[in-house]
Amino acid sequence: MDDRILDIISSPSDLKLLTDEELALLANEIREEIITVTSETGGHVASSLGAVEIILAAHSLLDCPTDKLIFDVGHQAYAHKLVTGRQGMFDTLRCYGGVSGFPKPTESEYDVHPSGHASDSLSTALGLALARDLRGTHERIVAVIGDAALSGGMAFEALNHIGQAQSPMVIILNDNEMSISRNVGALMKHLGYMRASSQYRQTRDSVQEKLESSGWLGNAMANFGRNMKESMKQFVIPRSMIFEQLGILCTAPIDGHDIPLLRETLANVIDTDVPVLVHVVTKKGIGYGPAERSPEVFHGVSPFDIATGEVKKKPSKAPSYTSVFSKALVAEAANDDDIVAITAAMKDGTGLAEFAELYPDRFVDAGIAEEHAVGLASGLAVGGKKPVVAIYSTFLQRAFDQMIINNALPELNVVFAIDRAGIVGEDGPTHHGMFDIAYTRMIPHMKVLAPSNEAELTRSLRTALAMGGPFAIRYPRGEAEGVEIPSEPEPFELGKSRLVREGSDAAILAFGRMVGRAEEAARILAAEGIEARVVDMRWVKPLDADAIRKAAKLPLVVTVEGGVISGGAGEGVLGELARMRANVPAVTLGIDDAFVSQGKTDLLLRDLGLDGEGIAKSVKKALGR
Amino acid sequence: MDDRILDIISSPSDLKLLTDEELALLANEIREEIITVTSETGGHVASSLGAVEIILAAHSLLDCPTDKLIFDVGHQAYAHKLVTGRQGMFDTLRCYGGVSGFPKPTESEYDVHPSGHASDSLSTALGLALARDLRGTHERIVAVIGDAALSGGMAFEALNHIGQAQSPMVIILNDNEMSISRNVGALMKHLGYMRASSQYRQTRDSVQEKLESSGWLGNAMANFGRNMKESMKQFVIPRSMIFEQLGILCTAPIDGHDIPLLRETLANVIDTDVPVLVHVVTKKGIGYGPAERSPEVFHGVSPFDIATGEVKKKPSKAPSYTSVFSKALVAEAANDDDIVAITAAMKDGTGLAEFAELYPDRFVDAGIAEEHAVGLASGLAVGGKKPVVAIYSTFLQRAFDQMIINNALPELNVVFAIDRAGIVGEDGPTHHGMFDIAYTRMIPHMKVLAPSNEAELTRSLRTALAMGGPFAIRYPRGEAEGVEIPSEPEPFELGKSRLVREGSDAAILAFGRMVGRAEEAARILAAEGIEARVVDMRWVKPLDADAIRKAAKLPLVVTVEGGVISGGAGEGVLGELARMRANVPAVTLGIDDAFVSQGKTDLLLRDLGLDGEGIAKSVKKALGR
Repeated sequence: MDDRILDIISSPSDLKLLTDEELALLANEIREEIITVTSETGGHVASSLGAVEIILAAHSLLDCPTDKLIFDVGHQAYAHKLVTGRQGMFDTLRCYGGVSGFPKPTESEYDVHPSGHASDSLSTALGLALARDLRGTHERIVAVIGDAALSGGMAFEALNHIGQAQSPMVIILNDNEMSISRNVGALMKHLGYMRASSQYRQTRDSVQEKLESSGWLGNAMANFGRNMKESMKQFVIPRSMIFEQLGILCTAPIDGHDIPLLRETLANVIDTDVPVLVHVVTKKGIGYGPAERSPEVFHGVSPFDIATGEVKKKPSKAPSYTSVFSKALVAEAANDDDIVAITAAMKDGTGLAEFAELYPDRFVDAGIAEEHAVGLASGLAVGGKKPVVAIYSTFLQRAFDQMIINNALPELNVVFAIDRAGIVGEDGPTHHGMFDIAYTRMIPHMKVLAPSNEAELTRSLRTALAMGGPFAIRYPRGEAEGVEIPSEPEPFELGKSRLVREGSDAAILAFGRMVGRAEEAARILAAEGIEARVVDMRWVKPLDADAIRKAAKLPLVVTVEGGVISGGAGEGVLGELARMRANVPAVTLGIDDAFVSQGKTDLLLRDLGLDGEGIAKSVKKALGR
Repeated sequence: MDDRILDIISSPSDLKLLTDEELALLANEIREEIITVTSETGGHVASSLGAVEIILAAHSLLDCPTDKLIFDVGHQAYAHKLVTGRQGMFDTLRCYGGVSGFPKPTESEYDVHPSGHASDSLSTALGLALARDLRGTHERIVAVIGDAALSGGMAFEALNHIGQAQSPMVIILNDNEMSISRNVGALMKHLGYMRASSQYRQTRDSVQEKLESSGWLGNAMANFGRNMKESMKQFVIPRSMIFEQLGILCTAPIDGHDIPLLRETLANVIDTDVPVLVHVVTKKGIGYGPAERSPEVFHGVSPFDIATGEVKKKPSKAPSYTSVFSKALVAEAANDDDIVAITAAMKDGTGLAEFAELYPDRFVDAGIAEEHAVGLASGLAVGGKKPVVAIYSTFLQRAFDQMIINNALPELNVVFAIDRAGIVGEDGPTHHGMFDIAYTRMIPHMKVLAPSNEAELTRSLRTALAMGGPFAIRYPRGEAEGVEIPSEPEPFELGKSRLVREGSDAAILAFGRMVGRAEEAARILAAEGIEARVVDMRWVKPLDADAIRKAAKLPLVVTVEGGVISGGAGEGVLGELARMRANVPAVTLGIDDAFVSQGKTDLLLRDLGLDGEGIAKSVKKALGR
C-alpha cells in the first residue's frame, strides 16, 4: 500500500494533474484494490474491472459534480467510487453500513442517481440535459451504458427522444461483448459485426485525425437526416447506423482500455453541441485472469481466493432456492413438452442454465427486457405452451403492466418464478424484492404461492403447472432450509395452508421464508411460557380463510411476511378478519414504509424485526407481556 | 342497408371470394358502418378508418383463426370485428354488454389478445411464432403495429429479439404519420424521411416487379448482416435501415389504401421464412372528412353529428377533471419557472395542450414511452426542476418500477398526475384505472392524494408542488362535481382528512370520486334513519390516523375507493385500525378481485356496488338493518 497514486486522489479533479502514464498506473492500482476488496466482500468484479479506464478518462476531462457522470447499472462504478473520495472506506463495500455497491446519491455528491436497474441512465441523462438547457448553463453530461443494457426498451425510448431533442450529451457505449448471460438480440449481433469489421485497435490515427481536421461535429449535425455528407461519414465508418438513423452521431469502436485514445476521443466530443455516442470496446474482468476467463462467475461474485479465483464456498446445509427451482423445472420439463423457460438475461442467476442445456429449443433468453419477456410468455401461452418466466422480484416490477394486461386479463397459463423475493442482502435497496407480494396479489386471476422451504418450492411449481392460469411463485435468495425434497412433489390444494406448530396463546400466520423465522419465534416464546401457533400460509392468494378463522379464535393474530406491509399479505389477512367480523387483536409484521439498506440478510431482517427474536418480541408486546 | 357485401361476410374466408373491386366496395361499406355506429357510441374512429384496407387485404390472404392476425392497440381493429362475424352486433360497440372496442379473446376466436396498451403486439407475435416453431406447424403470424407504438420500448425489445430469432412473421407497420398527439421521437423523423423520399405511390411497379422476379426474400436473408446483395437492396430502397440492421427485412413504403397493391405485397411475403416488415402508409380518418381533418379529435371521440363532424356535447354541470388539472397546472407554472410538464403521447388526453402552448420550452412529450417519461422526470428533478408527469392510471402501470427506483428511492420532487383513475367507462378492462391506489401506496416516500372534486384537485396540485417529494395525485375521467374552484388554492395539511357530513351510526371513509357517492349513500341512509358520517380522506398516504381513530368509536367503519380492494386504501385503514387495537366492525368497499367490463361509468359503478345505493346497502347490511 506504499506510495499509491490512489491514496492521493481526494477528488476527480486530481486526475487532471496526472499524465497518461500515471493514469495507467492508477488504473492498475484501482484494479488491485477492487480485486483485494471484493475477494473479501464479494461484488461485481468483472464489469467494474472493465470500466476502469473509461471512468478515469471521463473524470480526468469532466468537472464533476458540476458535470454529471451517470452509470447505467452502477455496479460497474467501483473505480468511480475510488476516485471520488471513498477509497478510505472502500473495504466496507456492500457491507452493512458500508459503501454501496451502486451509485447512491446520499453517499456522495458524485453519484447522480441510484442506478440498480438496467437501461435507465439515458432517461436520467436527458432529463439532466433538458434541465440544463432550460437553465441555460453548460455543464457536461456523460452517460456510461453497457451493450446489454441497450436491449432494455427504456434505453431505446430514451435514445429515440435524445435523437429528436438533440440536447448535447455524450453516451459512452461500454461494449463488453456480452451481457450478464450470453449476448441476446439483433442489436448485439449488429454491434458484433461493427466490432469485427472495424479493427478498432488499428483505426486510431485515421479516425481521430480526420475527426479533428474535419470539424466533424457541429457541422454535420446541421444537415442531419437529409444530406449528411457522405465524405465525412467514411471517416468514421463503420459506425452504428442504428444510432445515427436515430439522430445520434456515433464514433467507430475504440479500445476502451487505451487511456490516451479514450481521453483524446472524449476530449473531441465532450463539448459537443449535439448528442454523440462514443463506442468503446472493453473486456469484462480485464486485468484479473480468473475474471477474464469466467466473466459470468465474476459478474456478481461471492468472496473468492485471489490466487486461484476460486469462490470461497460457505459451508451450507442446503442447496439454494434457485438451484432447487432449477432441478424442479428440469424434472417437470422432462414430463411435459409444453413447458418453455424464459429468462431476461439472467440464465445463471435464475438457475435456468441446466434447462437451457437440456432443452435448448424450449429455452428463451429475452435479454434485459422484462416487458417483452412477459409479453412473449403471453404469446407462447396463447400458442398452447406453458411458459415459466423466471425473473428476480425487483426486476419483474418492470413488467407489472404486462402481468396485468397480457397475462392475467386473458387468464393465460403463465408461471412467474419470482426469484430473490424479499431481502436479498448486499445489493441493497435497488435489489430487495420488497414489493412482489403486494404487486401480485392485487392482480385479478393471479394465484400467488410463497413456499417456505425447498420441498414447498418443488410442490409449488408442480401446483402451478397442474392448476394453470396466471401463477406467481415467490422464493428468496440464498440457501434453502435443509429439508428433504420430495421426488414426486404433491400439488397443493388451492388456498390451503399448513399447520406447522400448534399453540393457543397467539397465531403466527407466516408467508414464505418467514415461516422458519416464525418457528424460531415460537420456540423463543415457548421458553417463556407462551404457546404460539405457527401456520405456513403457503398461499398469498387466495388466502386460507379457514386458517384465518381458526386463528381469530386465539387471543392474537400476527402476520409475518418478507415484503412491504402496505398492500401486503398481512393486510389481506386483516381484510379476511374484517369480512368474518372477527374481533381479535392483529399485528402485521413486514417491511414498514421505507427502503431497506444493504448488508447480510440476517442482519437486515434483525433490524426489521423479522428474525425469530424480533417476531417473538412483537408477539409479547402485543400480548402485553 | 340493402345489398351490402358486408352483410354476406360471415367469416374472413368469405373475403377470398371477392375481387379487388369488391373488396374496395366492402371497404366503403365498412367505413360507412364505422362512422354510423361510432356517431352514436363514440369510439376510435380515425385509426379504425385508416386500417380498413390493411385488414381486408390481410384477412383475404390469411386463414384465421388458424393463422393469427394481431393488433397493436386494438382500437384500430373495427374492420376486423366487422368481417369476423360481429357485424350484426356492431351497433353495441363499447356499450355495456356489447362489442368491445378492442380485440377480446373471450368475444371471438379471431381476437388473439386483449390489446389495449400500446407496443405489445410484437412480443405476442413472437411468442406465437416460437410456439408454432416448437410444434412444427406453419400457420402465418401477422402483427399490425402503428408508427406511434414503435416508440414504446417493449416494441423495440421485441424487434431486437425477432431480428435475432428469425422466426417467420409479417409485421405490418401502419405508418399513419402521427401518433395520438403529434409525432415524437427520432424514429418518427426517420420514417418521415423515408416516406418523403420514397414517393411510395409511384413506386409500385418497379418495386413489386423486381421483388417478384428477384426471389428477393429467402435468398437475401441467408446472407443477412454480412453480404446482403447491394444489387437487391436497391430495388426496395429507401427502406428503414433501422429495421434491417436489426435483422428484419423491410419493404419500401406502400400506399395502405390501395387494396390490390396491399394484397400483392402481402402475398409476396406472407409465406416468408424470415421476419419481414411491410411498411404501409395510411391516412388516419380517411374516407370521413371531419376525421381526416381532425384526427386528434377523432382519435377517441364521443358521439358526433355525421353531417358536420361536430361532437355532441352532453349538457354538463362541470368541467372535466382533466381540464381543471390543465388550468391549475398552467396557473402554477405562471408562478414557478421550474415546473416542467411531461406527457407520454397524450398531450390532449391529459390536458397539457394549453401548457404546451404557453410554455413550449417546459413541455415534453416523451412519446408512448412511460418508462422513459418517468426516468426523464427523475433526471429533470435531479437537475433542479419540478416535473409534473401526467399519465393515465392504466398506462402508468408501465412505469411502476421507475416510480420506485428512479423517483421514490432518491426522494425526488416529481408529481405524478394520474388521470383516468378508477373506472373509465367504455374503453373497458384494459383502460380502467383500478390499480393506482394500490401501486402507489406501497411505495416508500410516496405521498398520495385522491381529490374528491375539482377544488380539491386544484388544492392537491398546490400541495404536491409546495410539499415536494415523490407525489401522486389521482383523479378520475370525466366531469367533475360542479363545485367552485378556488382562485388561490390553499395547500392541505399532510395526512389530514376533511369531514363532509357528521353522523353517529357509521363512518364512511371515502377516497376520491367515491366521496360524492358516499354522500349520496348518507342521504339515502338518513332517509331511513341511519346517520352516517362521511369523511373525505383526501390522503391515500399518509392516512389520517385521527379520523380513523374517531371513526372507530362509531358502530361501523366503511371504506370506499374506486380501485381494487386487495392492497387498496381500505386495507390501509384496516391496518391503522389494527395498530390502534380498535375493536370495530369494518367493511372495505372497492373493486373486488376481478377485471371490470365496459359501459357507462355509472352503470359499472352500480354493478360494483359503488354508487350511492350500493354503498348504502352495504352499510345497512353491515349494521344488520
